[in-house]
Amino acid sequence: MSQNTTNGTERVQIIPLGGLEQIGMNITAFCYGDSIIVVDCGLAFPEDDMLGIDLVIPDVSYLKENIDKVKGFVITHGHEDHIGSLPYVLREVNVPLYGTRLTMGLIEHKLEEHGMLETTKRKVVNFGSTITLGDFHVEFIRTNHSIADAAALAIYTPAGIIVHTGDFKVDYTPVYGDPIDLQRFGEIGKKGVLALLCDSTNAERPGFTASERTVGRAIDTIFEEHLNTRIIIATFASNVDRVQQIINSAYKFGRKVVVQGRSMVTTIDIAGRLGYINVPDNTLIDIEELKNYPDNKTAIITTGSQGESMAALSRMASGQHKKITIGPNDTVIFSSNPIPGNEKAVTNVINELLMKGADVIFQDVHVSGHACQEDIKLIYTLVRPKYAIPVHGEYKHLIAQGRIARDLGVPKENIFILETGDILEIGQDGAKVGGNVHTGAILVDGLGVGDIGNVVLRDRQRLGAAGIVIIVAGVDRENGCITAGPVVVSRGFVYVKESDEVIDESTQIVEEVLQNALDKGTRDWNKLKNGIKDALSDYIWKKNKRRPMILPIILEEED
Amino acid sequence: MSQNTTNGTERVQIIPLGGLEQIGMNITAFCYGDSIIVVDCGLAFPEDDMLGIDLVIPDVSYLKENIDKVKGFVITHGHEDHIGSLPYVLREVNVPLYGTRLTMGLIEHKLEEHGMLETTKRKVVNFGSTITLGDFHVEFIRTNHSIADAAALAIYTPAGIIVHTGDFKVDYTPVYGDPIDLQRFGEIGKKGVLALLCDSTNAERPGFTASERTVGRAIDTIFEEHLNTRIIIATFASNVDRVQQIINSAYKFGRKVVVQGRSMVTTIDIAGRLGYINVPDNTLIDIEELKNYPDNKTAIITTGSQGESMAALSRMASGQHKKITIGPNDTVIFSSNPIPGNEKAVTNVINELLMKGADVIFQDVHVSGHACQEDIKLIYTLVRPKYAIPVHGEYKHLIAQGRIARDLGVPKENIFILETGDILEIGQDGAKVGGNVHTGAILVDGLGVGDIGNVVLRDRQRLGAAGIVIIVAGVDRENGCITAGPVVVSRGFVYVKESDEVIDESTQIVEEVLQNALDKGTRDWNKLKNGIKDALSDYIWKKNKRRPMILPIILEEED
Repeated sequence: MSQNTTNGTERVQIIPLGGLEQIGMNITAFCYGDSIIVVDCGLAFPEDDMLGIDLVIPDVSYLKENIDKVKGFVITHGHEDHIGSLPYVLREVNVPLYGTRLTMGLIEHKLEEHGMLETTKRKVVNFGSTITLGDFHVEFIRTNHSIADAAALAIYTPAGIIVHTGDFKVDYTPVYGDPIDLQRFGEIGKKGVLALLCDSTNAERPGFTASERTVGRAIDTIFEEHLNTRIIIATFASNVDRVQQIINSAYKFGRKVVVQGRSMVTTIDIAGRLGYINVPDNTLIDIEELKNYPDNKTAIITTGSQGESMAALSRMASGQHKKITIGPNDTVIFSSNPIPGNEKAVTNVINELLMKGADVIFQDVHVSGHACQEDIKLIYTLVRPKYAIPVHGEYKHLIAQGRIARDLGVPKENIFILETGDILEIGQDGAKVGGNVHTGAILVDGLGVGDIGNVVLRDRQRLGAAGIVIIVAGVDRENGCITAGPVVVSRGFVYVKESDEVIDESTQIVEEVLQNALDKGTRDWNKLKNGIKDALSDYIWKKNKRRPMILPIILEEED
Repeated sequence: MSQNTTNGTERVQIIPLGGLEQIGMNITAFCYGDSIIVVDCGLAFPEDDMLGIDLVIPDVSYLKENIDKVKGFVITHGHEDHIGSLPYVLREVNVPLYGTRLTMGLIEHKLEEHGMLETTKRKVVNFGSTITLGDFHVEFIRTNHSIADAAALAIYTPAGIIVHTGDFKVDYTPVYGDPIDLQRFGEIGKKGVLALLCDSTNAERPGFTASERTVGRAIDTIFEEHLNTRIIIATFASNVDRVQQIINSAYKFGRKVVVQGRSMVTTIDIAGRLGYINVPDNTLIDIEELKNYPDNKTAIITTGSQGESMAALSRMASGQHKKITIGPNDTVIFSSNPIPGNEKAVTNVINELLMKGADVIFQDVHVSGHACQEDIKLIYTLVRPKYAIPVHGEYKHLIAQGRIARDLGVPKENIFILETGDILEIGQDGAKVGGNVHTGAILVDGLGVGDIGNVVLRDRQRLGAAGIVIIVAGVDRENGCITAGPVVVSRGFVYVKESDEVIDESTQIVEEVLQNALDKGTRDWNKLKNGIKDALSDYIWKKNKRRPMILPIILEEED
């Protein structure tokens, strides 16, 4: 392996190309000589102030500029924040993909939707296998997470071994497959590890993360205690093991199962085909068959555990689901915790369900997929890295893992909290951040990728907050007279009936300003528009203390 | 007392006029014969989808229609969600106000700002005193809360005694004043209580709420462990006892104190004047004097503990505060928990502070101001009401308190989870919801009260999500020709440089549709506009998968 050939002065570059400013946009480049490999290619969901934006993807200019060197994307697991940008990024950086079986299954579904399956090279990698990508060798190590087939990576480089955990937890009793390969972490640690990039998501939480299997027991108990109602249970579509456990409980208590929500249907389909989920015969039924069974012989697995407004559960809660009506004979279970930022949306759905008479259970039917403090200590102690590079999480989580690393004896100067774009040059003889590369967040809105910039977003914020007042006037340039209008139209500003006065007075003000300027010989339409804007925004501020966007349009007569 | 005169068939009406749909808008009417009293008059903060709205106040049509009967507002404590609507509601329902001393001090400041101090009758009520308002007698009972001078009310009615806790906690060792008057709760309970309206905010939380004093000890410890840095501590401006404890710690450790944030300055001023806060001489300094002291001899008390974007702490975190620059020599303490919905904003501020090198402490420096499950059980056990009417909190919290009441032996049919506007008719011989009154939420935006309705909000949502495309054309009605334009202008839709194609093609489409219609003799401008709208929204959806607002304006030539 290449780590044996290092003479101690070789340096590898580690460059996060996304992830911190936009949580979730996980993508990290590892560079040496003429070889670049990229770990993960995730997307982020828009921040609150990114109005109308669907997704956020990373700016990969750096990879495009170095396309000849890029050997491939190595994917740790199949969550959106690790694979979601692939269909966009591959259009510009079309290199092979490597991942475990379920991960690749989920990627393939995504590529198919984008019509890119044919044009993308892919290779399924088994745990324990090593692939060679230029100067790098990458070994896939089994871990546990809230999705099956999650992998950590041991990246063998000319400068030494770098271990990247991906998102992980330590689950001694996983539902599907084996526990995390702690032996291999120890074995690689014994060889001497240059750097550890470790999941920080739960670095603020003390203790150990509970096994996924404990949730199965909790679900069983709820089924046992609610023998007389219908059971509706919401969870993350990608959590195949959770879905498996829900199906197990339903089967055990003789209930038929209906699956609701597009992403839930897709996951069960893919996981089923690949053998990651095992549904007993005659358990799944179509929603149309629900009426053929008594309530207490059915269970519904659904999306919407995060209160997403368009998800199946939210539509049930607000009475907009076409097939399912919530009532006092429903027990609704949230097998999930709200992701930060979603707390209020989730609470609103819970309140709506309660108002419809349902019993709602939303505590203690979930465990995290990420390692807590003691689990993180375990990995550090097995791997014993020279350098600690906390990854995955907000800045405060990275700082929290930095503290753990220090407690475990990693010297302060060997801990790197990187910012997106930082070039960390790292080797046996030292490490330092030496410059940075261009990175950024590209906004996706509908079919548009990158056509929404700050100006458009600021306009949307202003339009959303106070609406728009449009002034249109036809003007004859020659003789400086108003040929039509001015007409004042508003949207999102005030309720029209109430606003007659404001509109009338606005029209009057515009007319005066316009005629005055024209009389003085002004023919510079921009100057004219600015005059109108200033006069009108003054008036509206004094009148209403509001700041709508004001948009004058001068229409010139065509002769 | 009137409860002795009841013959068992008298009924009182209890009508929540706000509070459930809009959490925080606490206002409840109690009606009997020709007497109406109103408990509290709070405001709500806008929901996420109420774009541009500043506040939400209750529709008090019911009080206006019965103005001759309304005897006064009885206020339990000085938080915005209990007093905030007064300046708006008093304009239409100008009746006297009753409250304890600090509560009235805070109300008076508010009335002064609105120029309403002269025109409002007010009476300060001491704990233990009873006021008579028509057929009602109202006794003020001391409680504890996250603001001093909080009161519960014993309302003596011809139908029996009704106890309203207001927002409360049980604090055996409060910082200011006495513990909650549990003896009086017991004494009144012994007389026989018809109904208990009890705070539900923490009804989901097991155990007891810790004393405010425990926070003082936590703050002391932090000061002791951070002797070498500046200390910045954010909390709720209205939590006078918290501010007192912070000042105590600063004084003890020889630090000068700077107060930042308008509401914090106001509260300290009012509480100081009324004697609710005691600041040692020479402790407060002006922000300009900060530079005269070493960092570790200063502490800054600030607003912004909820991540509010315009608050002092948020401006410090984002580097926009003119006088205070955050750096590695700062310890920043959040003496608060995020209110539901604010989690992400708070986390963003924490991350920004950490990125500037500050040490940030945001856990375990706060206690709640609301009673937890065991405290609620204590009050029920002292009061032993016939009927339980959970108040204050979201629907799920009311349900949770309902469960507690059942566990304590209140029969299911004696527990009422009211909706806003419900008329609960209640007496010794029975209780039922008999109809409802008109209620609603009135939106305040700038100086406008109630001029923003659903149409305006929907327009704002659409404008915010996808922007606007405006089409202007001058048309000659007589000969049906286009005299100017069409011009297509967009805002918040796409970045203009990228959009040239979209704008060009849109203009072409509009021109065709317009000319076609005119040629066919169409002179119905609405029909014409709809044709343009349909054609353009089809085109844009196909091209971009977006749905901007489309606004055609036809300008008719003036002859």
